[in-house]
Amino acid sequence: MSPTEFVSVYRAVRAQSLELTAHLSLEDMALQSMPDASPTKWHLAHTTWFFEVVALKKWHADYEGFNIAYAYLFNSYYEALGDRQPRPLRGILSRPALMDVLAYRERVDNALQDWLQKVSPSDWIQAQPLLVLGLHHEQQHQELIVTDMLHLLAQNPLLPTWSPPSIRRAQQSSVPLSSAPLAWLEHAGGVQMVGTNEQAGVFAFDNECPNHPVWIEPFAIANRLVNCGEYLTFMEDGGYERPEFWLSEGWARVQQDDWHAPLYWVSASDKRLDFCTETSQAQQGLASDWSVYGVHGLQTLQAHEAVTHLSFYEASAYAAWAGARLPTEFEWEVLAQAQQGAASSDSLQDLYGVAWQWTRSSYDPYPHFKPMTGEVAEYNGKFMVGQLVLRGSSAFTPLEPFAHTRATYRNFFPPAARWQCTGLRLAKDKSTL
Amino acid sequence: MSPTEFVSVYRAVRAQSLELTAHLSLEDMALQSMPDASPTKWHLAHTTWFFEVVALKKWHADYEGFNIAYAYLFNSYYEALGDRQPRPLRGILSRPALMDVLAYRERVDNALQDWLQKVSPSDWIQAQPLLVLGLHHEQQHQELIVTDMLHLLAQNPLLPTWSPPSIRRAQQSSVPLSSAPLAWLEHAGGVQMVGTNEQAGVFAFDNECPNHPVWIEPFAIANRLVNCGEYLTFMEDGGYERPEFWLSEGWARVQQDDWHAPLYWVSASDKRLDFCTETSQAQQGLASDWSVYGVHGLQTLQAHEAVTHLSFYEASAYAAWAGARLPTEFEWEVLAQAQQGAASSDSLQDLYGVAWQWTRSSYDPYPHFKPMTGEVAEYNGKFMVGQLVLRGSSAFTPLEPFAHTRATYRNFFPPAARWQCTGLRLAKDKSTL
Amino acid sequence: MSPTEFVSVYRAVRAQSLELTAHLSLEDMALQSMPDASPTKWHLAHTTWFFEVVALKKWHADYEGFNIAYAYLFNSYYEALGDRQPRPLRGILSRPALMDVLAYRERVDNALQDWLQKVSPSDWIQAQPLLVLGLHHEQQHQELIVTDMLHLLAQNPLLPTWSPPSIRRAQQSSVPLSSAPLAWLEHAGGVQMVGTNEQAGVFAFDNECPNHPVWIEPFAIANRLVNCGEYLTFMEDGGYERPEFWLSEGWARVQQDDWHAPLYWVSASDKRLDFCTETSQAQQGLASDWSVYGVHGLQTLQAHEAVTHLSFYEASAYAAWAGARLPTEFEWEVLAQAQQGAASSDSLQDLYGVAWQWTRSSYDPYPHFKPMTGEVAEYNGKFMVGQLVLRGSSAFTPLEPFAHTRATYRNFFPPAARWQCTGLRLAKDKSTL
Amino acid sequence: MSPTEFVSVYRAVRAQSLELTAHLSLEDMALQSMPDASPTKWHLAHTTWFFEVVALKKWHADYEGFNIAYAYLFNSYYEALGDRQPRPLRGILSRPALMDVLAYRERVDNALQDWLQKVSPSDWIQAQPLLVLGLHHEQQHQELIVTDMLHLLAQNPLLPTWSPPSIRRAQQSSVPLSSAPLAWLEHAGGVQMVGTNEQAGVFAFDNECPNHPVWIEPFAIANRLVNCGEYLTFMEDGGYERPEFWLSEGWARVQQDDWHAPLYWVSASDKRLDFCTETSQAQQGLASDWSVYGVHGLQTLQAHEAVTHLSFYEASAYAAWAGARLPTEFEWEVLAQAQQGAASSDSLQDLYGVAWQWTRSSYDPYPHFKPMTGEVAEYNGKFMVGQLVLRGSSAFTPLEPFAHTRATYRNFFPPAARWQCTGLRLAKDKSTL
Repeated sequence: MSPTEFVSVYRAVRAQSLELTAHLSLEDMALQSMPDASPTKWHLAHTTWFFEVVALKKWHADYEGFNIAYAYLFNSYYEALGDRQPRPLRGILSRPALMDVLAYRERVDNALQDWLQKVSPSDWIQAQPLLVLGLHHEQQHQELIVTDMLHLLAQNPLLPTWSPPSIRRAQQSSVPLSSAPLAWLEHAGGVQMVGTNEQAGVFAFDNECPNHPVWIEPFAIANRLVNCGEYLTFMEDGGYERPEFWLSEGWARVQQDDWHAPLYWVSASDKRLDFCTETSQAQQGLASDWSVYGVHGLQTLQAHEAVTHLSFYEASAYAAWAGARLPTEFEWEVLAQAQQGAASSDSLQDLYGVAWQWTRSSYDPYPHFKPMTGEVAEYNGKFMVGQLVLRGSSAFTPLEPFAHTRATYRNFFPPAARWQCTGLRLAKDKSTL
Repeated sequence: MSPTEFVSVYRAVRAQSLELTAHLSLEDMALQSMPDASPTKWHLAHTTWFFEVVALKKWHADYEGFNIAYAYLFNSYYEALGDRQPRPLRGILSRPALMDVLAYRERVDNALQDWLQKVSPSDWIQAQPLLVLGLHHEQQHQELIVTDMLHLLAQNPLLPTWSPPSIRRAQQSSVPLSSAPLAWLEHAGGVQMVGTNEQAGVFAFDNECPNHPVWIEPFAIANRLVNCGEYLTFMEDGGYERPEFWLSEGWARVQQDDWHAPLYWVSASDKRLDFCTETSQAQQGLASDWSVYGVHGLQTLQAHEAVTHLSFYEASAYAAWAGARLPTEFEWEVLAQAQQGAASSDSLQDLYGVAWQWTRSSYDPYPHFKPMTGEVAEYNGKFMVGQLVLRGSSAFTPLEPFAHTRATYRNFFPPAARWQCTGLRLAKDKSTL
Repeated sequence: MSPTEFVSVYRAVRAQSLELTAHLSLEDMALQSMPDASPTKWHLAHTTWFFEVVALKKWHADYEGFNIAYAYLFNSYYEALGDRQPRPLRGILSRPALMDVLAYRERVDNALQDWLQKVSPSDWIQAQPLLVLGLHHEQQHQELIVTDMLHLLAQNPLLPTWSPPSIRRAQQSSVPLSSAPLAWLEHAGGVQMVGTNEQAGVFAFDNECPNHPVWIEPFAIANRLVNCGEYLTFMEDGGYERPEFWLSEGWARVQQDDWHAPLYWVSASDKRLDFCTETSQAQQGLASDWSVYGVHGLQTLQAHEAVTHLSFYEASAYAAWAGARLPTEFEWEVLAQAQQGAASSDSLQDLYGVAWQWTRSSYDPYPHFKPMTGEVAEYNGKFMVGQLVLRGSSAFTPLEPFAHTRATYRNFFPPAARWQCTGLRLAKDKSTL
Repeated sequence: MSPTEFVSVYRAVRAQSLELTAHLSLEDMALQSMPDASPTKWHLAHTTWFFEVVALKKWHADYEGFNIAYAYLFNSYYEALGDRQPRPLRGILSRPALMDVLAYRERVDNALQDWLQKVSPSDWIQAQPLLVLGLHHEQQHQELIVTDMLHLLAQNPLLPTWSPPSIRRAQQSSVPLSSAPLAWLEHAGGVQMVGTNEQAGVFAFDNECPNHPVWIEPFAIANRLVNCGEYLTFMEDGGYERPEFWLSEGWARVQQDDWHAPLYWVSASDKRLDFCTETSQAQQGLASDWSVYGVHGLQTLQAHEAVTHLSFYEASAYAAWAGARLPTEFEWEVLAQAQQGAASSDSLQDLYGVAWQWTRSSYDPYPHFKPMTGEVAEYNGKFMVGQLVLRGSSAFTPLEPFAHTRATYRNFFPPAARWQCTGLRLAKDKSTL
C-alpha cells in the first residue's frame, strides 16, 4: 500500500467511526454504563490517540500535541506509555467535550495526512504496519462503540430505540439461516495447520500467529448457530435452575446475579414495557412472552433468529443440556478453512456476521507466540489468562474497508461477559454421533 | 400570598435553576460523579416532578402527565409514591435528553400557571403550603446543583473552570472576614427557646419545629470561621497523622481514604497541575504549596479565607487540636438569634453565606416533632439518624426569592460528607476560657 | 477501698469471667462470628492486658511482661498504646492457646496481688481509679462474652444449646412482667438534673458525667417493655413490608439484609429445625410458628416475654406502628430516678436486667464532657458519633460485684446492631395521650 | 484389589490423616483463614462424609447416619447432593467438636469395614472404584490440610512453628537439587501421546483421561526449578515494579494486594520478627534480609532452595524477566514420561516432591473428556474454566499408600492462588535457544 492508498483507506475508517454516532446525542456519547464499557466519546478520542502515539509523535517532526492531558485521558491500558485515567472512571469526564474530541480527531487526521504527503520511503516502511494496525484497532473499537452503547441504552428504563443506520437489523436477515434444520458437519481430524503468519499484504494480529500444526480428534460441528427458539426450550426445561448443566463458576453467577435469560431478553411482565410508547408496542405486536432488546429497539422474540448476548457459562450450559459441547477454537477454524471452497449445500452457516461464537478454548498463547514490539507490545499478549476464545464475527463487526472476518481471528472475553454480541454453535465428538 | 403573587415568585425560582446551568454543557449536566450526587439534568426534572405530584395531579383536573415513566425516573426517595430509579444509577440516563427535561419543565410550568389563574379559593388554601414548599425544595436543589457539579468537575483531571455567573467567587469576599482576629463571644446560657412554629407567612421546614425550650450551659463561640491558614497550621502540626484528635470512625476514614487535606485542596506536586493551561497557572500565580479548587477554578490558597469542604470528622479533629470544640446546634442558634439586633462591633461574622457550619449535634427530632403529612411526609423525618446538624448557609445557598438563611434552619449530612460547602466555627465551655 | 478490699473484689470479678466459660469448648472460645464480635479467648486476654497496661507496667517495678506480642494481639482500640491485631482478624488467632491465655491471666493476677501487698499509699491513690475501672471494664466484657458467643452459636446450623450456668434463663422470669397491661407513667418535665459526677465511692464512666440540667417536655413512658406477642402483631400487620414506619436507613437495611423478624427468631419452616435432635424438639413442644434461640437453646416463642435482639431501626419502626415513639435518654433517666423511691404499684418494670432499651437519643457528649486521661483517654469519647444511646441493662449484664444497673449508665451501639440483648420501651408526648 | 486388601489400605490412609494433626490443637483445627481454605476439622469430616455418600448410604443396608446435619455441614460442592454450609463459613462451626468428628470417623470406619466383610462380589465390583476414589480424595485433602493450616498459622503475628512430623523439612533436602547449574533438556516434539485411560489397577482422575495425541513443537525445559536466589535477583531487578513482565490481571493484583515477594517471605524489617522468641531467632541466625516461613517455622532464606508459594502471575512474570516462558502442560508431561527410563546425568530434577509447577496451560477438558458419573460427577469437570494446570507434586503431597506423583496428574488452581506449595520450572522454544 502506498501512502496515498493508505490515506484513502484511513479516511474511510475514520469517517465510519463518526457515521456510527449519527443518531446519538452528546449525552449518549458521554456516559459509561459499567467498568467494562466505555463512552463513545472516549472511543473516538482513544483511537485518535493511538495514531498520535504510534506515528505522529515518532515521525512527524513538527507535530504539536493537541493537549498534554489527552495522553493521560485516552491511553487505554498501555503501562509503558504512562499513567492513565482509571477505566471505571472514563464516564466522569464531561470535559473534554465531544466538540473538543472532534477537533482532536481533525487535528490528528490533518497532521497525519500532511506527513504522509512527504513521508520518506524508509519511514513509510517502518510506519505502515503500525498505521494499518491503527485502522484495524479503530475498526475493533467501532464494534465496541455499538456494544457499549447498546449496554448503556439497555440500562435505561425507557429502553430507547437507537437504530444506527450503518448496522443492519441484526436478527432480521432476509434469509433467517438459524431456522435451517440442525445438521452436523464432520471432520476427520488429524494434524492440521491453524493460525497464520505475518505476510506482506495480509493483516493479522499477533495473537493469531504463527501458523502451526495441531492434532485434532475427529469431530462434528453444527451447520448453524443455536437459535432463540431452541434456547427458550432450554429455559423452559429449567435450564437456569438445574446446576447439573453448569460450570461451577457459572452456576455461582446465575445465583448471584439472578440470571434467568440472555442479557437483553425482556419478559412480558417487565415493568419497563410500561414505559415504551404505545405506538411502538403496537407496531411490535408483543404477542410473545418474551421480547428482545437491541440496537433497533424492542422486538418480539423470533424463534428462528440466533440467540445472542450470552455468557460463555450460558453457552456451555446450553450445550450440556443439548447433549453436545462447544467446539474448540481449532475445530472451528479448520472447518471454517475447509468451507471456503465448499459447495453451499452443506456449508456452515452464520460463520460470520451474526454472532461471535464461544469456543471451549481458553485464550492461551500459540506456540512461538511473539507479541508485537514497541508501543504496541501490550496489545494482546498480556490478556492471555482467564479468558475464552470466540470465533467468527457478529452483526456489529465492520465489514469494510477491512473485513474482520477471517478464519484465524481470535476474539476473547471473560466467561461471564454478556454485553458483546455473542452466541454459540454446537459441536460433538465424532464417536458420539 | 395570592395565586398571582405566587406565580411571580414561582417564575423567579424556576428561572434561577436554569440560570445556574448557563455555562454547562449537555455532557456536564448528564453525568453523576458518585451515588451521593445527582446529575444537573436529574435535579431539573426532579424539582419539576415535585410540583407535578404535590399540585397538578391532585388539583388540575385536565392535567395530562408528560411521560408515564418520569414518575419512576425522577422520584427521589418517596416510598409512598412508588418505585424509582436507584439513586446510584441516575447517571446512566442519557435519555430523556436535556431538551426533553426542559420541555417537561415548560409543560408543568404552563399547566401550573393555567390552573392558578382559575384556582378556587378553597383549593388555593390547601395547595399554597405545598407549592411554597416546592419552591423551597427547588432552592435546596439549586445548592445541590452547584455542589454536585463541582464534585463532578473536581474528578476531572483537567480541573475545568466552571464560573457560574450567579455564584460569587465564594472565597474572595471584598471583606475577608475570616482574617479578623479570633475572638470569643459569650452567652450566659440557661433556658432558651429554639426552633420555630408554622406561622402564616413565615416558612419553616418541619424539622425546625416546634419552638421549644432547651437548657444551655454558659458557653463562648468564635466570632468567625476557621480559616485556611489556621487549618494549614493544623495540617503542618501532623493533624492528619495524629489519632488523638480524631473520633474513631473519623480516624478509620482518614486511613482508608487517605485523607490528608480538605477535599478540594490541591498540592503543588499534584500531577493534575500539569493539565491546567499555562495561562491560567500564570494568572493564578501558584506560589504556594497549596491551591484550592472551586467553582471558579483553581486558586492559590488564601490564608484568610474560610476553610471549606471538610467532613464533620475533620472539623471535630481540628477543634480538638485547637483546644476547643464544635458548638451544639442550639448554642449556634441562640447566639445567632441574639446577634440579630446586636451592634456590629462584636458580632458573629460569616453566620450565613460562606460555609455551612458543622455542629456537635446529631440530627435528632425535636420534642413534639411532627412530620409533614401526605405526599411530603417523607421529606425530612426519615433521615433523622446517623447525621450531624449544620447551621448557617454557604456561598452556594440561594438568597432569593427566599433567603435560606435563618437562625432555625437545620441542614444535615453524614459525618464523612465533604462535597458540600462545609466549614467550622469553634466553641468553648465558658468555664474553660 | 483499701488495697486488701480491692483484691477481694478483683478476685471475684476475675473468677466470674472464667465461670462464664464453664460450658464452652476450646473451639467455641477461639472463633469469631463477625467483625463486631470477638472470641471469648480474646476477651479473657484483653481484660488482662488492660490491668497490665494501666497498673503493672506503670507501678510494678519488677513486673516482667508475659509476652511481648500480647500488647499487639490484645490491645483493642487504643491508638496511643500502639499497633494492634485488626479487629476483624481476632478470630484467626489459634495461638496463643487458651491455656496460654489462662497462664497470662494467672501471671497478671499474681503480679497485681503481689504489688498490692506492698503498694505505697501515694501510688494507691493514683492507681485505684484505674484498677476499679479495670473491674468495670472486665464486667462489660463479661456481657460481651455472652452476646458474642450467642452470636457465634446462632450462626451454627446445629443451633447448639449453651446453658451458661451463671446466666438465668433470660426470658423466663418467674414473674413475667412484660405481660402486665400496658400503662403510661407520666412526668411533668421542666428543668431536670441528669448525669452524674465523679465522687468518692461511686463509680461512673466519663460519658455519664457531669451532672447537668436539661429541659424536658412533659411526657409519658410505658410501664413495661414491648413483648414478643405485641411485636408479632406488628410483624403480622406487615411491619417489615411497610416503609412508612421506617427510618430511611432502616428500610434500606431491611431490604438489603432481608430482615423479617428479630435476629434470633426461628420460623417453623427454618431448615435448621431439622438439625435439632428430636428429643429437644419434643421437650420444647414447638407448637408455635416461631421459636426463639437464646443462650439456653431454642424455645417456643412466649408472647409475654420481652422482645429482644432488635436493632434501633426495628425498635423505631415498631414505635411508629404503635402510634408512639422511643423515649429520649433523659426521659428514661429522670423517670428511672423518680422511681427509686416510688410505690411499686405504678412503678416502671424491667428497668434493669431484661433488655437494654433503645432511646431516641444519639450518643453525643454531655456539656462539659471531659474524657478520662492517660492510657484510658480513648475509652468512651472517641465513639461519640453515629451511635444511639441505650439505657437500663440486660439479662446478660453482671449484677455483682458491681451492679451495672444505674439510672445514669449510657450504653451505645450503632443503629443496625442486633446481637446485643436489646429491646424497647415506648414513650409518648404528654399532649398526645 | 480384594475387599480385604482394600481395608488395609483404607486404614493406612485414614490413619495418615490423623497423624498430620499430631501437633495441632483443637483451636488450630477449628479455624479458617480465608474462604479458599478450610479448617482441619472440616477436612477430617468431609473426607468421611465422602465415604458415607459414595458407599455406605448406597450399599450398607443397615447403616444409620451419624447425624442428619452432617450431610449439610460437610458436603463441599456437590449440588446434586443437596444444600451445604457456605464455604466461607466453614470456620464458624465450633460444633460439632473435634471429638464428635473423630467419633464420626470411627463410626464410618467401622461400618465400612463391617460391610466389606460381607460385601457381595457384584456390589464390590461397583463399589471398588468409588472407594478407591475416596482414598485418593482423602489424600488430596491431606495436602490441603497442610496448606490450609500453614496459611492459618502464617496469618498469626506469632508465626508459630508447627513441625508436623510426617512432613519433611520441605526446603532442606540433603541434596539441594535446585542449586545445580541450570541446563536445558530438549525435546523434538511432533505428535505425542498424553493423558491416560481408565485401566484396571491404575488409578487416574477423570480429568487426566483419555489418552490422546497432541502436536508439540520442539522445545526445551529447565533441568530444575527456579530457586530462591534466582527469584531474589528478579525482585532486586525491580520484578514487582516493572509491568512489562506481567500479565495484565497479574499486574493489577500486584498493585491491589501490594505483592512484593512470595507469599511466605518475611523481610528483615517485618514487625512480626519481634514476636518470635529470641532463642529461635538466634538458632535461625537471621543474617539475611529475608527469611521464609513454612511448616517448620521461620528459616533464613536459602538461595539454592526452590522458590515456592507463588501465584501463576508471579511465575509468569519471572519467566518473562528470565527471557523464557512456562512450559505447557504437555511439554511437561512428555518430558516427564521420557525421563522415566533416562540416565540420571541429564534427568529432570524436582519433578515431584518439591513444588507443584505452574504451566502455561489453562485447565480445559481433554478431547473426549467424560466426567465420572453418579454422586461424583461434579468432582473435576465443573471447575474447568479460569484455572491453570500445575504439574508434578509438592513436598506436602502424600507419597503413600498411593503416590500422587504421576506424569499425567493435572492439578489446577486459579492464577492468583499462592497458598499452595507452588513453584516454577522454565521452558523455551527450541528455536530460541
